[in-house]
Amino acid sequence: MKLEKLVGDRFKERPSECVTDSHALMLRGGYMKGVASGIYSSYMPLRRITRKIEQIIREEMDAIDGQEVLFPVVLPASLWEESGRFESVGSELMRIKDRNDNDMVLGMTHEEAAVHLVREYGQSYTKYPFMIYQIQTKFRDEARPRAGLIRVREFTMKDAYSFHTSQEDLEAYYDLCHKAYERIFARAGIPEVISVASDNGMMGGNLSHEFMLLTPIGEDSIAVCGECDYRANMEAAESVIVNTRDEVSEPLTKVYTPDIHTIEDVCNFLHMPETKSCKAVVYQRNRDDSYIVLFLRGDLEANETKLRNYIGEEIHPAVITPECGLNAGYIGPVGLPEGMTVLFDKSLQNTNNLSCGANEEEYHYTGLDLDRDVPGVEYFDFAKIADGGICPKCGKPAITVSRGIEVGNIFQLGTKYTKSMNMTYLDQEGKTHNPIMGCYGIGVGRLAASVCEVSHDDYGPIWPMSIAPWQVQLCCIRSDDAEARAFADGLYAELMTRGIEVIYDDRKVSAGVMFSDADLLGVPVRVTVSPRNMKAGVCELSTRDKSVAEKPTLEEIADRTEALVKELLAKCNA
Amino acid sequence: MKLEKLVGDRFKERPSECVTDSHALMLRGGYMKGVASGIYSSYMPLRRITRKIEQIIREEMDAIDGQEVLFPVVLPASLWEESGRFESVGSELMRIKDRNDNDMVLGMTHEEAAVHLVREYGQSYTKYPFMIYQIQTKFRDEARPRAGLIRVREFTMKDAYSFHTSQEDLEAYYDLCHKAYERIFARAGIPEVISVASDNGMMGGNLSHEFMLLTPIGEDSIAVCGECDYRANMEAAESVIVNTRDEVSEPLTKVYTPDIHTIEDVCNFLHMPETKSCKAVVYQRNRDDSYIVLFLRGDLEANETKLRNYIGEEIHPAVITPECGLNAGYIGPVGLPEGMTVLFDKSLQNTNNLSCGANEEEYHYTGLDLDRDVPGVEYFDFAKIADGGICPKCGKPAITVSRGIEVGNIFQLGTKYTKSMNMTYLDQEGKTHNPIMGCYGIGVGRLAASVCEVSHDDYGPIWPMSIAPWQVQLCCIRSDDAEARAFADGLYAELMTRGIEVIYDDRKVSAGVMFSDADLLGVPVRVTVSPRNMKAGVCELSTRDKSVAEKPTLEEIADRTEALVKELLAKCNA
Repeated sequence: MKLEKLVGDRFKERPSECVTDSHALMLRGGYMKGVASGIYSSYMPLRRITRKIEQIIREEMDAIDGQEVLFPVVLPASLWEESGRFESVGSELMRIKDRNDNDMVLGMTHEEAAVHLVREYGQSYTKYPFMIYQIQTKFRDEARPRAGLIRVREFTMKDAYSFHTSQEDLEAYYDLCHKAYERIFARAGIPEVISVASDNGMMGGNLSHEFMLLTPIGEDSIAVCGECDYRANMEAAESVIVNTRDEVSEPLTKVYTPDIHTIEDVCNFLHMPETKSCKAVVYQRNRDDSYIVLFLRGDLEANETKLRNYIGEEIHPAVITPECGLNAGYIGPVGLPEGMTVLFDKSLQNTNNLSCGANEEEYHYTGLDLDRDVPGVEYFDFAKIADGGICPKCGKPAITVSRGIEVGNIFQLGTKYTKSMNMTYLDQEGKTHNPIMGCYGIGVGRLAASVCEVSHDDYGPIWPMSIAPWQVQLCCIRSDDAEARAFADGLYAELMTRGIEVIYDDRKVSAGVMFSDADLLGVPVRVTVSPRNMKAGVCELSTRDKSVAEKPTLEEIADRTEALVKELLAKCNA
Repeated sequence: MKLEKLVGDRFKERPSECVTDSHALMLRGGYMKGVASGIYSSYMPLRRITRKIEQIIREEMDAIDGQEVLFPVVLPASLWEESGRFESVGSELMRIKDRNDNDMVLGMTHEEAAVHLVREYGQSYTKYPFMIYQIQTKFRDEARPRAGLIRVREFTMKDAYSFHTSQEDLEAYYDLCHKAYERIFARAGIPEVISVASDNGMMGGNLSHEFMLLTPIGEDSIAVCGECDYRANMEAAESVIVNTRDEVSEPLTKVYTPDIHTIEDVCNFLHMPETKSCKAVVYQRNRDDSYIVLFLRGDLEANETKLRNYIGEEIHPAVITPECGLNAGYIGPVGLPEGMTVLFDKSLQNTNNLSCGANEEEYHYTGLDLDRDVPGVEYFDFAKIADGGICPKCGKPAITVSRGIEVGNIFQLGTKYTKSMNMTYLDQEGKTHNPIMGCYGIGVGRLAASVCEVSHDDYGPIWPMSIAPWQVQLCCIRSDDAEARAFADGLYAELMTRGIEVIYDDRKVSAGVMFSDADLLGVPVRVTVSPRNMKAGVCELSTRDKSVAEKPTLEEIADRTEALVKELLAKCNA
């Protein structure tokens, strides 16, 4: 099509609200427009990108025997009540009443709808395994939408659900899907995506992986081992600590520590390393605001996800009031008020001679020996893995923590939904079982933004051929020159005839405007026709990533352009 | 794919809740499953049909320079407040509050979102005309969902919006779109769809057409002239009445009419035709329940849409209470209580010697002459056109009223949205104007159901090749026969290699089960391989509509099948 007719404005200035490059470029390039916080309309270039991504996903899902279906956006709350999630999921689930006062929800994930659809079908073991998927709009009422399409409230998602009669069968399919995801990301132009073990969160089940694109603007922290293939989301990564115990335990001694509140201050004051201190972190249950005091080694951070999973309900960082009995800055395990949940991280196991709060204003203890001073303690893993930490797989201190965007996830759900929603099948012996489920998601818009995030320069996105809004941008410099114009018009028609997607810029604007617009559209192949080149009998053929810059003759240009498009496309699908 | 793996149940019994065949067949054939009233999940066969319909629509919209975009499902109420529709649209608009207590709505149509998207872009006349469209999920909280996919609450719709700088330009584009719609319906297999003039309703604007598929199960009534090309929705059809006036007006005379309430009873009692009576129909405004009394000729029906348009707000049939001053059954234009809106249909203009209620229990008048007895009356068109009525275009009494399903609509919106939402452009002289809009909708699921409604037999749908879930159904009768099985397996692979969409039934079930399942899937071409045919060296090749039934040799079958698929596809696209 002609660029002149393309609806949407392109502009130079980076919008001030943008913290990520993909967000800024997708606004500057006329890809989308904000409608409300975390809600966007897409212009044609973005819609073309997302449709191509959808098609790649569809092909790969079909290749692993997925059956495309479609679930509703608006679901009766009764389905979510069956699974228990109407209660357990927080305010990110949009709840509505219809005109007859029925409770409805906006689907943010479709496990319930999937079970509903196949509950009758799957009554015999002979029907298994099967996988259904959809590509559909979802809504999550995120508290903090950010970074353009990276974290939104409304988004298009491919969500797939598989059903199995054994854990082994699920695992085999899970691996198939893992490989399909690798192909999807590779075809979409980001083969560098890695998969990491993750926490199942509100989805339930017990094994899951996230597909992460490492970039500093990512919202997730990922622990990657430099020595083996261990990779995990911080939320899920096991924290391995090798503790050492001093030979002699000193006596528990109360020390006057005026105006000293933080671990850092305490350790400085006592001339002890942070690894020799016992830190308190306090949370409250959302349900009743009751207190949870977690103790861990002074140099470590609490992992809220692990804590939440252990507690089994929603928690939040505590507000410490004068009445609650806790002395902020002086909390320790000895002499803690009654009636609180007290937990100990593994990092404190088998340690002694620690400093800790004395539960008394301006006093700390030294010489804490938990085995001696707080007998009968059980230790669990509540700490965040840290840079340089010990790899839980190979045992070497080779962990690096990086930031990443989660571009997909796969879950082994077990029977959480089939059990609660009473989906059963009869096996060969006529016995009743709940089928075992897996689920598999990819956010289409987030994937587009992620590609842009890792593939752009200051001037615009550099789209891979497989998902580019157009394959070729044809620029006719000085379209008022009859000869150049005639050649460009002819080439446009010729390329279109060959089935190539061309955006043709024949506006009467300067070469500078033309090129900066082309940079913003990020079309991978550019052909430039100009009076000067015409005189030399050539065109310019280049790629957006600058890897190709040629001057084929006017006779060669159509063939050479087609070949380059095919070559770049093949590279994505390799 | 193999039918054995197709998720979804097929069954023989017509579900008792189904009033239409398409609804029953789409449930019986495993096309969809109800999730809530007017909300369905689609299984793979229906999703394949709707995707093909979407692609046909997309191609035709692209062919008239449409640019595919995507608007959100969840929209801020503020946009609908700008246009005034947040207030004016009733409870079919789903209103929600998000977690921050912002008012949001579920988009049931996207005029506001379209204006929002292009408001900045369209500031200069040089950008016009342009058209944007999307294919997206919509939600309307219908009071009475019915007939399966014919009237639902959640549906996929293609909605397009065009923007123009002159009425002429809009009209030219409107015609283009009209033709594109004709191509869409023809390609989808229902070339018999007709377009009819319609009422703009809540959309605003002043000219619109509905595309109607005539079928007795349709919800709309359409007036079609047998003598010219006049076609209109009943709601919009002008009622033309040629009145005759008796030479002598008799005096207004009160008559005792005990226990006589209906027009029929009155006319029988007085031995007068219904055309000589003046009927009252009473409505109330939704806003304040104030009364509207409409008088029209006794043989005619009130057209609520025309009345609503005249009144300019929502109305409902009146509840006549003892206090309201009206005598139900005896309402007439002479001596009516004060304070009501009184309206007269054109059918009463220039008439005399009518009977009418006397506004007194058990009394009617005869000899009513409105010019004489109720001077100064204005007459408007508030009546429904009737079977045998006069055509407003050619003037002949050749109107037939038929039922139809509205499968698409196009509207000339004028500046209703651009004005209220303050979208302007500068013309060549630097003057400011509001652009003129058109909008164009097609419901994808309803179109699928409509095709099924007019193209099915007792055993299942008969899908046109263009939108069929698969192109060929391959049945291997007695798949335990090694020779038949091997040939069918080979043919399946061969047809797939040729790019033909095949559903392969190799189950060990009877021919009866196989064929009844095939009938329910409605695949247009069927190939049957059986041991008996193998012995004769042939296969059976037939079409679902029974127009083809051949026995090509085993050597010919692949070629012949491919040719038949292409032939049937070409017929749809002709």
